[in-house]
Amino acid sequence: MIDHLSRVDGTRVLADLHALRAIGAYKTGVHKPTFSEPHIRSLHWLVQRLPEASLAGEIDGIGNVLGASTKPGPKLLAGSHLESQNHAGWLDGPLGVIYALEAARVINRDPNISGAVEVASWCDEEGHFGHFLGSRSYVGGVTEADIDAAHDRSGRRMRDALRDAGLTGRARAQYERGRHIGYLEAHIEQGETLESSGLKIGVVTSIVGIWQYRITFTGEQNHAGTTRMAIRRDAGLALARFCVDIDERFPAACGSRTVWTTGRISLDPGAPSIIPGAAEMLFQIRDDDPAVIARLEDLLRSMAAEVDKQGRCSVAVERIRTGAPALMDVAFQQAVEQAGAACAGGRSLRMPSGAGHDAQILATVMPAGMLFVPSIGGISHHWTENTADADIVTGAEVFVDTCRRLLAR
Amino acid sequence: MIDHLSRVDGTRVLADLHALRAIGAYKTGVHKPTFSEPHIRSLHWLVQRLPEASLAGEIDGIGNVLGASTKPGPKLLAGSHLESQNHAGWLDGPLGVIYALEAARVINRDPNISGAVEVASWCDEEGHFGHFLGSRSYVGGVTEADIDAAHDRSGRRMRDALRDAGLTGRARAQYERGRHIGYLEAHIEQGETLESSGLKIGVVTSIVGIWQYRITFTGEQNHAGTTRMAIRRDAGLALARFCVDIDERFPAACGSRTVWTTGRISLDPGAPSIIPGAAEMLFQIRDDDPAVIARLEDLLRSMAAEVDKQGRCSVAVERIRTGAPALMDVAFQQAVEQAGAACAGGRSLRMPSGAGHDAQILATVMPAGMLFVPSIGGISHHWTENTADADIVTGAEVFVDTCRRLLAR
Repeated sequence: MIDHLSRVDGTRVLADLHALRAIGAYKTGVHKPTFSEPHIRSLHWLVQRLPEASLAGEIDGIGNVLGASTKPGPKLLAGSHLESQNHAGWLDGPLGVIYALEAARVINRDPNISGAVEVASWCDEEGHFGHFLGSRSYVGGVTEADIDAAHDRSGRRMRDALRDAGLTGRARAQYERGRHIGYLEAHIEQGETLESSGLKIGVVTSIVGIWQYRITFTGEQNHAGTTRMAIRRDAGLALARFCVDIDERFPAACGSRTVWTTGRISLDPGAPSIIPGAAEMLFQIRDDDPAVIARLEDLLRSMAAEVDKQGRCSVAVERIRTGAPALMDVAFQQAVEQAGAACAGGRSLRMPSGAGHDAQILATVMPAGMLFVPSIGGISHHWTENTADADIVTGAEVFVDTCRRLLAR
Repeated sequence: MIDHLSRVDGTRVLADLHALRAIGAYKTGVHKPTFSEPHIRSLHWLVQRLPEASLAGEIDGIGNVLGASTKPGPKLLAGSHLESQNHAGWLDGPLGVIYALEAARVINRDPNISGAVEVASWCDEEGHFGHFLGSRSYVGGVTEADIDAAHDRSGRRMRDALRDAGLTGRARAQYERGRHIGYLEAHIEQGETLESSGLKIGVVTSIVGIWQYRITFTGEQNHAGTTRMAIRRDAGLALARFCVDIDERFPAACGSRTVWTTGRISLDPGAPSIIPGAAEMLFQIRDDDPAVIARLEDLLRSMAAEVDKQGRCSVAVERIRTGAPALMDVAFQQAVEQAGAACAGGRSLRMPSGAGHDAQILATVMPAGMLFVPSIGGISHHWTENTADADIVTGAEVFVDTCRRLLAR
């Protein structure tokens, strides 16, 4: 009986993930923006599952779910998030929540294991209303004024969304110093490193920092028919040149895993018959080494100065987001690696996370660790995101074994 | 008395232009989108001026104003438009209408001059609801279904705008074959050729054609943190490269006055943490020689094929607008040039118009001509657009003298 309790049930894990996939389904993925009806329904679904794992919990005043255990012994916090990016994948978030739930189901009723896994679903990891609002609220980083000011891109106020979800007036769950030995989170890799190497488990060493810039070009708005090419000060063309220049000059200055992206471009006024007088791009750099970021930012600013010097358009580089990298706890890395050796034939790889995760917020108050499972084709933030069923089950086994090892230390 | 009547009154011309500038003023320019309250008020203002020039007219069912004369003899149609681009200049349009009004005031009451000038204000030359809707309606190129379908960028339906302006049910003025000896229009140059050469009058030889393209790049949308640079298929970067490539390769294939512009860029989905999976640019080429356009379009398509061949992103080039150049009537060019010799010391230059004008629509049914006055700094489609008072008055004198010469032929 105890033996049965202690085993991971892969079928149950897949069934739970499919149950969440059916809530807010979009093509083969889901569309569950934060505080949308399917997101709230997913949270209620999780609350109803908690007793299966001997946990009690509710949705808190910011949309977090925390399942608390009364079992004696050490407690490990584990989880992820249930909302999605728009029209995105079914595993980004739910995988980590269901792994945590499965670990709690396996461990919390087993009297031979000292301690328990407590399950967390952090609200708005995807940042519809703000960056990591749920986990930041838990560690004490979100004020009531922050919530008053928050709104999504459509202009919907967070207060209204909370009210519509019936959460007005509920307390927000708060981190209790000393309650947990640490935080463990599983996630799809969202890249193709594991898949292309035939590996099954990523042992996350760090979560890279994100530095974001607004780069603005100012030229001269003019008529697209009457202004000769020779005298134009086309801000859009200056922006295009800058993008190409970045692509040519960053490789010589970056680290081995640095990535950079221009995700948004707008030309002003944006009419086909008007030479753009201004243009703006949102530019992001990610790396786990602040020295690399500093070097690249210097390069960016010197490139802008060169454009300024040419005198045709002026460029302003404004840093609008600074994210220090988060290091994962060494003991957690070891536990994941040992579990990978025991349950996945050692097919694991130490790697940084290029994406941000709630683990980087929890890492500010307790030891934290993460493990990755492979993403098919490396695709994520798209409804075609997927992971092979066998890899999902292997990941669950490694996750639960990691929890066991951490509680046993 | 007759001598007095026959003279251009520069003070009156400037006063009228300033009266129109005061309606819908924005900084030193105006904001008069088509069918906005200040635009409609400007049309009523013009209707009230017509009797001064022995003309009778009303606003028609599409927002045109046509002032008809009962004077015997040949009739010359002259005018321009009264609406503006958003937050744009005070002279783009009104200059040509007031010159026409001044010509009618001078000529129509003068018994020594055979014939009359009839004044037109064409609606929506600026294309808020469609391209040249007013003049195209006059020459029979706009159906009721076209009007049903027309709306501005905000989604306001043209039918609703016409109703709000009290124009529902009014007939649309129609071109009468044989009524006019031709059409004359004055406009600011909107470029800096005249100013930089110290000249006062542009004798327009042709209005360039506008060819417009939607160029779409398809790559692969992915996570901006987890997708290594080496495997990215970034549609936004492909677009930026293409813009730079155009700028490098077009000069060797273009004509001496060809211009090209990327006026709008959008990345999909346009989020800072997502590699764009698709990107689109609106691209325009203008020239008065279709052979040049054909050569450049071939180049554009072969550049797109090269990008396709590299295999990282695919490119689709779709032509969405084809504008044949319009040639100005030779006799009209001569009349403008002779008037320039008589009234502006011969400081005129034959030149094509890089901008579109209602004259290109009228040119499809009658001889047409245009003259330009200098634009300070070449600026237009911006509220700082301006022309020196002395140049405005000189232009009016050349315009009225041109009308006299054309009627006398």
